[in-house]
Amino acid sequence: MVNITRLNIAQKDFWPRLEQRLSWEGIADEAVIGVVRNIIHAIRTQGDTALLAYTQRFDNLKIASATELEISAQRLQAALATIPIVQREALEMAAERIMAYHHHQKQESWTYTEADGTILGQQVRPLDRVGLYVPGGKAAYPSSVLMNALPAKVAGVSELIMVVPSPHGEVSDLVLAAAVIAGVDRAFTIGGAQAIAALAFGTETIPRVDKIVGPGNIYVAAAKSLVFGQVGIDMIAGPSEILVLCDGETDPEWIAMDLFSQAEHDEDAQAILISPDPVFLDKVAQAMVRLLPTLERREIITASLQSRGMFIEVESLDQALEVINFIAPEHLELSVKDPQALVTRVRHAGAIFMGRYTAESLGDYCAGPNHVLPTSRTARFSSPLGVYDFQKRSSLIQCSLQGSQTLGRAASVLARGEGLTAHARSAEYRLKAK
Amino acid sequence: MVNITRLNIAQKDFWPRLEQRLSWEGIADEAVIGVVRNIIHAIRTQGDTALLAYTQRFDNLKIASATELEISAQRLQAALATIPIVQREALEMAAERIMAYHHHQKQESWTYTEADGTILGQQVRPLDRVGLYVPGGKAAYPSSVLMNALPAKVAGVSELIMVVPSPHGEVSDLVLAAAVIAGVDRAFTIGGAQAIAALAFGTETIPRVDKIVGPGNIYVAAAKSLVFGQVGIDMIAGPSEILVLCDGETDPEWIAMDLFSQAEHDEDAQAILISPDPVFLDKVAQAMVRLLPTLERREIITASLQSRGMFIEVESLDQALEVINFIAPEHLELSVKDPQALVTRVRHAGAIFMGRYTAESLGDYCAGPNHVLPTSRTARFSSPLGVYDFQKRSSLIQCSLQGSQTLGRAASVLARGEGLTAHARSAEYRLKAK
Repeated sequence: MVNITRLNIAQKDFWPRLEQRLSWEGIADEAVIGVVRNIIHAIRTQGDTALLAYTQRFDNLKIASATELEISAQRLQAALATIPIVQREALEMAAERIMAYHHHQKQESWTYTEADGTILGQQVRPLDRVGLYVPGGKAAYPSSVLMNALPAKVAGVSELIMVVPSPHGEVSDLVLAAAVIAGVDRAFTIGGAQAIAALAFGTETIPRVDKIVGPGNIYVAAAKSLVFGQVGIDMIAGPSEILVLCDGETDPEWIAMDLFSQAEHDEDAQAILISPDPVFLDKVAQAMVRLLPTLERREIITASLQSRGMFIEVESLDQALEVINFIAPEHLELSVKDPQALVTRVRHAGAIFMGRYTAESLGDYCAGPNHVLPTSRTARFSSPLGVYDFQKRSSLIQCSLQGSQTLGRAASVLARGEGLTAHARSAEYRLKAK
Repeated sequence: MVNITRLNIAQKDFWPRLEQRLSWEGIADEAVIGVVRNIIHAIRTQGDTALLAYTQRFDNLKIASATELEISAQRLQAALATIPIVQREALEMAAERIMAYHHHQKQESWTYTEADGTILGQQVRPLDRVGLYVPGGKAAYPSSVLMNALPAKVAGVSELIMVVPSPHGEVSDLVLAAAVIAGVDRAFTIGGAQAIAALAFGTETIPRVDKIVGPGNIYVAAAKSLVFGQVGIDMIAGPSEILVLCDGETDPEWIAMDLFSQAEHDEDAQAILISPDPVFLDKVAQAMVRLLPTLERREIITASLQSRGMFIEVESLDQALEVINFIAPEHLELSVKDPQALVTRVRHAGAIFMGRYTAESLGDYCAGPNHVLPTSRTARFSSPLGVYDFQKRSSLIQCSLQGSQTLGRAASVLARGEGLTAHARSAEYRLKAK
């Protein structure tokens, strides 16, 4: 049986109850941080020697030299040839669509020239080298390889290094095939905090990168936090969430399955349904009862729905929007007749799935937009992973002689106002140039 | 006397020596973190009561109620009326130029429709509410108010909240005037970790924000790191740096003053000069000896140059570019005849100042581009503060019936490959809709 918390916006304590139910704090375990600090220090000071020792110990990998950590081009190609053709075609179609979408995000350099000849602008450049972390073991997600790698390739990153642990020497052919399709340049069978440290500082075998992206366990997340500054990192993701708004006219079984698809990720995942139609909420609850026994991951789903799921009854779509903007969901499904009328009023969401035919899972795999999205209400201030995460900007300023006079006088006044007289005099020298 | 380290790229140990000289690690002091954790916890649980107590204790502010922490609109206007007209005009000119430049960075929403009617796109929205930290006391930098506030205003942020500590009740009129000119919506006289915690979690008096930007001391930086996730934050900046590349044809006194202008920030600031002309390096060194005694901040400058300054001799501009891209400087001055020929080969730099008339200090105040820039070699993967830091994106997907068939089949194959059967069935339901 599924027992989902049901809230009604008319309840006096609705907002505090909602906030309490949303709250999530990834607790930084001091013990984990201590272990990770030691691993990073060892990799930084001993390089390959430490990397090999950790990999032998944690992954049970029996190899003699660090050079064997690299996955050969032949092995990668063999993986691509091994997987079922239907899988390969689906991955290739997904890759094409992801690239087409992400090309729209690419930013170009620009400049403009002022009346006195002064040139101002912004030079946009890709990062030189990026590291992509891919978890190993049971949860082998080739879609994650595509979603993390392709924006970097579209940005023009010269070298993309993938790391994936291979416990007991095993690594997923689907993951390797996705790496080939995504254009990964080199791949190594390392994982955990030691892989993050190797990418951040470099070893004799592993090239040092400028940014590390991709999901991982708490050791990987802690390592990424600790090397941040030395390299760039992507967001540290919380549990995945979906918020479905339905006007009551979509098949209740479809909506039930959409909620299940989020809840099946893990016990901490959060699935929320909002509707102005209380009878529809009942129907979805009944559909869940019917469908749940047929699902492979029903235990995870039940745990997730009981601990974090919510059905919210509102009086109008206006009220629903108020709740949506408060929650700032990672995934928002607008399963309504006219989603375009609502979407411009959504201020905060990672990705918005509009209309009854747009199942959230299409976005996870092949619609085109990225599936790496801001979780835990961080869509208030952050964005999906994109090409912009692999580009960076340099400001450009080229003053004409005349421009240096106008600007120099103002800079001199302001610098003296701040007591920075060398700043002022540096500008004033150019005034004397007249 | 100034004693600056001189390197030559021809030296056998040049690269390791350069790397050693560049290295900078802001050490996270466990004691500071402990204090800051307690402050955040107190503000979170006791709100205004704790905020008032800390402000009375740390800032010696004698007020009876938290509502007195707000700086009135009259007080702000009075500051604007008080400052010298030449300062006001310079601030207004700077603000206009900063806004004009940053308008070029504003991103717009976009969508495209595929052949089968499926709509894909990206909705761009400003953040709702932003907090701006401004340090108090001696280092009152109105330019920092403009540079942090104006990109948020250009992005369309609805509410901009400034906090500035007022030790013993004192606050800089220049800072308050800059806040008025920049369009700050509300301002409070609070500072330190307690101000960051109040902005991140909100109190009865201080509104909760979505992102916090602006420079501060180690307590402020530690507090920003600790509240990250709850709110967005900007980069934690290291000491400021300049790298000047000169072909030997700029007046050595100009270059000496440009280096001084960086070194005067603080003892940890770094000023580096590269030239293919060793005689020119000597001339700049001599100019420094002549000019140094005339500078108000000569003690700071001397300490900075001795501990972190560098003169680097190269054989060609090509070699200089190699060194520049290795260093990835915050500020790069291309004081050469044809800077346009070099600039496209610069892969990493926060801001690039081109030609002999473009003193770096023009960019600090009024050229237009932002002066908040990536330090400590982070220009390899990060960008100047910009409008993009105050906008965020939501992906848009609206599948047509036909689109949901094509995408649904691929999603089903990929989801089953990953063992996520609820994902697969959610997509498959829409296939049955045919």
